Amino acid sequence: MKYPSHLLESAVNEFASLPGIGRKTALRLALHMLRRDPEYTERFTSALLSLRRDIRYCRLCHNISDDELCPICANPSRDHSVVCVVENVKEIMAIENTGQFRGVYHVLGGIISPMEGIGPADLEIDSLVARVAEGGIQEVLLALSTTMEGDTTNFFIYRKLSAYPVKVTVIARGVSIGDEIEYADEVTLGRSIINRVEFGEGMRNFS
Amino acid sequence: MKYPSHLLESAVNEFASLPGIGRKTALRLALHMLRRDPEYTERFTSALLSLRRDIRYCRLCHNISDDELCPICANPSRDHSVVCVVENVKEIMAIENTGQFRGVYHVLGGIISPMEGIGPADLEIDSLVARVAEGGIQEVLLALSTTMEGDTTNFFIYRKLSAYPVKVTVIARGVSIGDEIEYADEVTLGRSIINRVEFGEGMRNFS
Repeated sequence: MKYPSHLLESAVNEFASLPGIGRKTALRLALHMLRRDPEYTERFTSALLSLRRDIRYCRLCHNISDDELCPICANPSRDHSVVCVVENVKEIMAIENTGQFRGVYHVLGGIISPMEGIGPADLEIDSLVARVAEGGIQEVLLALSTTMEGDTTNFFIYRKLSAYPVKVTVIARGVSIGDEIEYADEVTLGRSIINRVEFGEGMRNFS
Repeated sequence: MKYPSHLLESAVNEFASLPGIGRKTALRLALHMLRRDPEYTERFTSALLSLRRDIRYCRLCHNISDDELCPICANPSRDHSVVCVVENVKEIMAIENTGQFRGVYHVLGGIISPMEGIGPADLEIDSLVARVAEGGIQEVLLALSTTMEGDTTNFFIYRKLSAYPVKVTVIARGVSIGDEIEYADEVTLGRSIINRVEFGEGMRNFS
């Protein structure tokens, strides 16, 4: 594609460097910028610059934050004795949206993945152990991806925490709500039978 | 969705204001910015700011340009006696990609659309007539959308130019290359029969 302007070409290149944005979409976005007033572009770019320059990470849980502590860690009405371990910030937002968790979080920054060269030292595992060692935490709930990498990370954390008097739990794996049994994959279906719960108890949250 | 940071929320809002970008994608893009080094965000935003601040429009054809004349109007080896009329800059790029047009362009900035409140006065039609009135243009090729709005605009321009000794042509409408006749819509197929060309002549460009 030949561009009539180098300025346009650079803007298209930058948009196209974003994940999931191809060159055609990038061109559409750049032309959209040109159609809107200049203040729009000012506002757009200054929001991104402020985000990148001024963002902080919560001292305790490593969640994205405007302050030293994120709104969840700073909230005294949350249950600080239950820590939910997640891969990234997006998972915190997903779990918060369920409205089913009143504890606090710990962001690992990824999961152990030998394929991608990510080992335990690249993740916030030591700081999790340090939080537990300080005392006051009664339960660590592992909410990582239900993949081999997630399971490896779960097991690594479980072993690290076994020296401390803390309960380690993991999110339930089973048939998704709304799924038909007939079409559930057999590993999930098998696990959902092994981990069956007494009727009433497991139904509590689905009202 | 509750965001842990106002900075993140503003960045997501800005990304989500782009056409075709939903809030989930916007969050992914904002988090992508945070994962990359700060220089990436600097480069990204400065490309957009330069585009918006320094972009110019070609004095003759209103194409996007870095200078007073766009690269096409400034090119002496183009045929300046044939002017192709298009809706927007994107269509110039599409036609240039075909490699089949050696003339110059004129960007209308849209088409006549009573539904959207766009009349002839909102478009660069007067400046097109002025270019023709100046002399030196032998053919005006209308390459607008093959819709009712496009046809209306074609007809309006045709009448405006009828006072001048200039040939007005329109891009061929017919069965798309690669289409099977069986599945072509009947209006297009009917038009392709009315506008049939002598074998050899019409095949020239498809080698």
